[in-house]
Amino acid sequence: MEKISKQTLQRLPMYLTFLKQRLTNSLDTVSATVIAQALGLNHVQVRKDLAAVSTGGKPKTGYITHDLISQIENFLGYNDCEKAVIVGAGRLGKALISYEGFRNYGLDIIAAFDKEVDIINKEISGKPIFSMELLKKTCIDHGVKIGIITVPVNNAQAVCDLLTNSGIKAVWNFAPVHLQVPEGVLVQNENMAASLAVLSKHLKQKNKQNKSRHT
Amino acid sequence: MEKISKQTLQRLPMYLTFLKQRLTNSLDTVSATVIAQALGLNHVQVRKDLAAVSTGGKPKTGYITHDLISQIENFLGYNDCEKAVIVGAGRLGKALISYEGFRNYGLDIIAAFDKEVDIINKEISGKPIFSMELLKKTCIDHGVKIGIITVPVNNAQAVCDLLTNSGIKAVWNFAPVHLQVPEGVLVQNENMAASLAVLSKHLKQKNKQNKSRHT
Repeated sequence: MEKISKQTLQRLPMYLTFLKQRLTNSLDTVSATVIAQALGLNHVQVRKDLAAVSTGGKPKTGYITHDLISQIENFLGYNDCEKAVIVGAGRLGKALISYEGFRNYGLDIIAAFDKEVDIINKEISGKPIFSMELLKKTCIDHGVKIGIITVPVNNAQAVCDLLTNSGIKAVWNFAPVHLQVPEGVLVQNENMAASLAVLSKHLKQKNKQNKSRHT
Repeated sequence: MEKISKQTLQRLPMYLTFLKQRLTNSLDTVSATVIAQALGLNHVQVRKDLAAVSTGGKPKTGYITHDLISQIENFLGYNDCEKAVIVGAGRLGKALISYEGFRNYGLDIIAAFDKEVDIINKEISGKPIFSMELLKKTCIDHGVKIGIITVPVNNAQAVCDLLTNSGIKAVWNFAPVHLQVPEGVLVQNENMAASLAVLSKHLKQKNKQNKSRHT
């Protein structure tokens, strides 16, 4: 149950969403095949993913929906929250700090940090914005292990260094830049520019197809 | 130059960011090896990616930084903007509509749509929020091909159906749910819950390692 791929980890929250919808509709059992069909995945893959987190379904009935939800949530640690800080209280940073939903995913954002004097010592949705000088002390005092980077590209590496020097072990990076980190620190990139590249290329290919169809 | 993988597409914006930083530092040429080292990628991979978008660098000097930037930008269509609409003007939707940076990536968000009467007909950063009833007409009148979904999970599929019925060909989905779409429509998922799963699992594994080291 130890070695689990990043791909499996990324699918687990999707299973959870589906299973919770199912429970709302009073469907108390579920099979890997049903999940696979609903989510457009391969059923062998789903079976393998679930085997990594659950003691397994029964031959005819499949999994008990409620139990499977608990097992996935436990596995992902949704029940014990990890503390996080955000650096960069611009629009995106503010949106993330205000988003209550992260608590359901085991993430507790305790404070934001920024260098803009205008917003320092103010609050967003009840969470404080501190000056950068307080970053290290706050992380150490509160045992914060997750740092979220929502600063512009040019400052991202410096902020990342500051975070890893403050004991951060996992960086959630929203700046479209490759970050260098010490061994043992994980960087999870949320690269919206990359997503946009995929979207816009798809449209360009469709336009080309349409044009050639009409000539 | 036609068939390009999703992985390559997703790396191209990262190359762009790096190349622009390089140009700022007056470094007029660049090799695939330099890019690969800076971004922590395999140099064969980088060379292959660049070959898909550029006529190629010269044996000794490599690529002209400025030319390579133009070639990637052209390839990704950053110079001609695609129009987009956002459905769901909650915190995340508002953050996205306000983010000026998307224009640099060829995305022009022209309006948001929501069912909350309180915010309908108001503006966010100069962009209008309309009622859902106007969605289809707006998309058709303005030839909008990209729809951004920032509504809660339970409404996401219904909104997606509405978008594809309004001529949308590419969906950028921020709801943590698998969407069913007609053939020819692309869904790009921005699944923050999946990212959080990876981050929190990494921390749990580190905690376990530390504990076993101390016993």
